[in-house]
Amino acid sequence: MNETMEEVVMKTERTAKMYEELVALCAQAGEVGSSIESIGWDQHVMMPRGAKSVEVRGRESSALSAVHHGLVTSPRIGELLQSIEVATLSEAEAAQVHEIQEMYKRAVGVPTELVAQITKLATEAEMAWRKARSNNDFASFQPYLEQLVALKREVARCIDPNNSEPYEVLLQGYEPGMTLDKLDEFFASIRAVCVPLIREIASRPKPDVSILRKEIPMELQLAYNKMLAALLGYDFENGRLDTSTHPMTCGFGRVTNRYTNGWLSALLGTAHEVGHGNYCHNLPLEHYGTPLGTYRSLGVHESQSLLMERHIAKSYAFWQGNFRHLQAMYSPVLNGVTLEQFYQAVNLVEPGFIRVEADELTYTMHIILRYEIENALMDGSLAVRDLPQVWNRKMKELLGIVPPNDTLGCLQDIHWTDGSFGYFPTYTLGAVGAAKLFAGAEAQVPTLERDITQGDLSSLNSWLKENIHQHGCRYSSDELYRLATGSELTVGPYLEYLTEKFTNLYKL
Amino acid sequence: MNETMEEVVMKTERTAKMYEELVALCAQAGEVGSSIESIGWDQHVMMPRGAKSVEVRGRESSALSAVHHGLVTSPRIGELLQSIEVATLSEAEAAQVHEIQEMYKRAVGVPTELVAQITKLATEAEMAWRKARSNNDFASFQPYLEQLVALKREVARCIDPNNSEPYEVLLQGYEPGMTLDKLDEFFASIRAVCVPLIREIASRPKPDVSILRKEIPMELQLAYNKMLAALLGYDFENGRLDTSTHPMTCGFGRVTNRYTNGWLSALLGTAHEVGHGNYCHNLPLEHYGTPLGTYRSLGVHESQSLLMERHIAKSYAFWQGNFRHLQAMYSPVLNGVTLEQFYQAVNLVEPGFIRVEADELTYTMHIILRYEIENALMDGSLAVRDLPQVWNRKMKELLGIVPPNDTLGCLQDIHWTDGSFGYFPTYTLGAVGAAKLFAGAEAQVPTLERDITQGDLSSLNSWLKENIHQHGCRYSSDELYRLATGSELTVGPYLEYLTEKFTNLYKL
Repeated sequence: MNETMEEVVMKTERTAKMYEELVALCAQAGEVGSSIESIGWDQHVMMPRGAKSVEVRGRESSALSAVHHGLVTSPRIGELLQSIEVATLSEAEAAQVHEIQEMYKRAVGVPTELVAQITKLATEAEMAWRKARSNNDFASFQPYLEQLVALKREVARCIDPNNSEPYEVLLQGYEPGMTLDKLDEFFASIRAVCVPLIREIASRPKPDVSILRKEIPMELQLAYNKMLAALLGYDFENGRLDTSTHPMTCGFGRVTNRYTNGWLSALLGTAHEVGHGNYCHNLPLEHYGTPLGTYRSLGVHESQSLLMERHIAKSYAFWQGNFRHLQAMYSPVLNGVTLEQFYQAVNLVEPGFIRVEADELTYTMHIILRYEIENALMDGSLAVRDLPQVWNRKMKELLGIVPPNDTLGCLQDIHWTDGSFGYFPTYTLGAVGAAKLFAGAEAQVPTLERDITQGDLSSLNSWLKENIHQHGCRYSSDELYRLATGSELTVGPYLEYLTEKFTNLYKL
Repeated sequence: MNETMEEVVMKTERTAKMYEELVALCAQAGEVGSSIESIGWDQHVMMPRGAKSVEVRGRESSALSAVHHGLVTSPRIGELLQSIEVATLSEAEAAQVHEIQEMYKRAVGVPTELVAQITKLATEAEMAWRKARSNNDFASFQPYLEQLVALKREVARCIDPNNSEPYEVLLQGYEPGMTLDKLDEFFASIRAVCVPLIREIASRPKPDVSILRKEIPMELQLAYNKMLAALLGYDFENGRLDTSTHPMTCGFGRVTNRYTNGWLSALLGTAHEVGHGNYCHNLPLEHYGTPLGTYRSLGVHESQSLLMERHIAKSYAFWQGNFRHLQAMYSPVLNGVTLEQFYQAVNLVEPGFIRVEADELTYTMHIILRYEIENALMDGSLAVRDLPQVWNRKMKELLGIVPPNDTLGCLQDIHWTDGSFGYFPTYTLGAVGAAKLFAGAEAQVPTLERDITQGDLSSLNSWLKENIHQHGCRYSSDELYRLATGSELTVGPYLEYLTEKFTNLYKL
C-alpha cells in the first residue's frame, strides 16, 4: 500500500500526540510510585513506631499502592500502546514505548486475584519463616514455600505463556533481557575460578583482623562516613545520609547506613549506598517517572553500588592516598596499623554460613547456591522438602563448609517469603557489571588510578554519569555495556579482578 | 405511600451497601490526602534543598494532588450521595454522609479552570507580594489582589449562589456553619472589652522582660521542649518534635518548632503545636480519612493549640509548680528570677505592628482588623486601592498605633496572596473556643488546677479527648461545644479570662 505524503504526516502527528499522552500517563504513575518510595523512606528512617503511627502509614501506603496499580494498568495505556506507530518515532521515543510496553505487559498480565493471593500468603509466610528460623524448623515453613513456588510459577505463566522456563520469566522482572543460558555460563565460569581460589586461600595463614573489632565513637563514625560519601561524589544538596536498621537507598537517592556491625562494615555500607544514590541523582530528570528516567535494572543498579564498595572502598589505590585521613579521624584506635595491614583486614576472605556477612569472594558462592536452588524449584526438578539437604550439599561443594542447622542454612534469607525468586542473581550481575565497568573506565580514563588515590572521584563519576546514569532505560543492558565498554557484559573482567587481587593479597 | 416491611428492609440494605462504598471512596481520598501531608512534612523538615530534590518533590506533590482531586470529585461519590436513603442510617452515619455531601459540594462546585486560574495567579501574586513588601510598594501588588478578590468572589458564587455574602461562603470553607452575624457579634463584644483594656495597660509601667532576650544553649532548649511536650501529653510513640523554619503540625500529628525567636517563643510554640498534635493523635483511627475521623474545623483545631499555649503555658497555675524545672534546666540564666517576674514576662502586653509577634491580648485586634477588611473587600464596600489607608486607620482605632509604612502594615501577611480570605477569623474562634473549653473543663474536673500545677495534664487531656477529639466531625461545632460545655460557643468565658488575667497582672 502506498501512502501519500499527507497520510504519512497525519499518522506521524497522531502518533506524536498519542506518545505525549502515553508518556504523561506513565510519568504520573511513576510520580505516584516515587511518592510511595518517599513515604517508605520516612517509614524506615523517621516514622515513630507507635501502633497508630504505623496504622496511618499502612493506610497511606495501601491507598497509594491501589492508585499506582490503577494507573499502571490503565486501559488507556493499552489503547495507546496498540495505536502508536512506532516507526514514526525517534529512537529514544521508540525505546520509551518499548519499555512501557514491557512494564504494561507485566502489570496487566497477572490477574489481580493472583497478586492478592500472593500478598496474603507472603504475610503469613513471613511470620511462619520467622518462627521456623528461630526454632530451626524447616518443616513448618515448607508448606508455605511450596505454595509460593506454585503461585509464582503461575505468575510466570501469566506473564509469558510461551516461555517454558518460569524462572527465566521471573528473573527478567528484575533483569530485563537476561537469559538462563547466559546466567548458567556466567556462574559456571565463576565457579571454575572461585572455588579453587577460595580453597587455596583457606589453606593460607589468616591475616590479623583484630582492628575490625575495635570500637570507634559514633560521632566520629558519622563524621567520617559523611566525608567519605562526599569524597565518593554523593550530592548532599539533593540527598541525605541517615541511620536506619538496614543500609538502603530510597526516595530520591537518599542513602542510609547502620553502625551496629562495626566501623568497617559501616564504611563499606556508605560506599555501597553512595553508588546507588549517585545513579539515582544522575538519572535524567526531564524523564522522571518514565523508563527513560529510570534505572536500567537491578543488576545495573548493583553494579554502581559494588563499583563504589569494591573497586574503590576495598581498593589499594584508594586507601593508599586516604588511609591517613581515616587513621587521623579514628585516632588513636588505628595508630600503628600499616596500610598493608588495613588493606588485608578490609579484604579478608573467609567462608561462612551467612550470605549477608560474606566477603566479596565467597559472596558469589552463596548466590550460585541460591540460583541453582531457585531454578530447580521453579522447573520442578527439586522438591521443597529436599531443599535443606541440597542446600547443605551445595555449601560443601562451593565453600567447603556445612551449616550445623537450617537456621544458619536454608532458613537465613527473607527473600523467598514473598516469592522473590529470581532476585538473588542480580547481586552477582552487579558484581560482574562493576568489574566490567571499572575495567572500561580504566581503559578510557588515563588518570583514573591516580585520581582515586588522591580521593578525587570526579573523573570516575563523570564517566559513569555519561556512560550509564544519564541513559536511564534508553538502551538494553547489553547495549548499555557495549556502548560504555565496547562489548556486552562478560565475566572476564570480574574473574581477572578477583584473581589478581586475591593472588597478590594472599601471595598465592 | 405505604411500604411493606420487605421494601423497607431492602431499602435499608441497599443504603447500607452504598454507605459502605461511599465511605471507602472517601477514605481512599483521605488517605491520599494524608500521604500529601506526609510528604509535605518531609518537605518542611527533612528534604534536601537542591534543585533536583525540590523538582522531584514538586512532581510527587502535583501527581498526588491531581489524584486526590480526581478522587474527591469522583462522579461515583455524587451518585451515591444522591441514592443513599439517609433516613435508614444511624445518626453517626447520617452525620458522615452530611459531611461528605458538604465536602463534595465544595469540591465539585468550583470549575477546574477557575481553580487552575487561581493557582496560577497565586504563584505570581506571591512573587509580586514579596517584591512589594520588600520595596514598600503596595501599588505594585494592588492589581494582583484585585484579581484575587474578583476570582474568590466567583468561587463563592459557584459554591453557594444563594448566599449573597461571598465572604461568608469562603469563611465556611474553614469554619463550617459559622455566620457573619455571629462573627460580627463576637468581634463587637471583644472590641468593646479589649480596646479599653489594652489602652489601660499601655498607660502602666512595662514589666522587666530582659530575661526573654537571654541566650539559652540549643541542646538545653531541645531537651526542655521535649520534656514540656511530653508533660503536656504529647504522644512521642506516635509523633515527633522536630525543628523547622515555622512551627507546625503536619503529617499524623507530628509537630515542629523553631528556636530562632528566643527561648520563650520556642516554649510557647511547643505548647501550641502539642495542642494541635494531641487533637490529631486522638481522632478516631477507625474513621481515618473520612469526616468522622477528621478535625471539626480550623477554629476547633486552633482552640486545642491555644488552650495548651495560653491556658497552660502562659498560666500562673502551671508555672507555679513547674517554673523550678525550667529554671534548673536553663540554669544559671534564670537564676534569681522570681515566679512573678517570669509570669509577667511571659504575659507581656504591648501593641505592635506585626500580627505574628503579637501577645494574646493585642493579637485579636490584628484579627478584627483583617476580618473587617476582608469582609469589606468581598462585599465590595472597600476598594483594594484604599486598603493601606483603611488598614492604618483601623490600627489607630484598635491598637493606638500607626505603622510607618505598608511593609509593617497591610503587606505583612502572606495569606491573601493565594486568596485565603476567611482564614484569619479562625484564629480568634480558636482563642474564644479555648477559653470556653477550659472553663468547661474547670467546671467538670474538680482537680484541674491542682493537676496543672503538678504538671499532670492527664485529667485535662482525657476531658479533651472525650469531649472534642474523639468526635471528629460527628457533630457540628455548635453541637460539639454544647455537648462539651452545656452551651454553644460564646465569647463570655474568653472575655472573663482576659479581663481577670490582665487586671490582676497589671493591677488595673
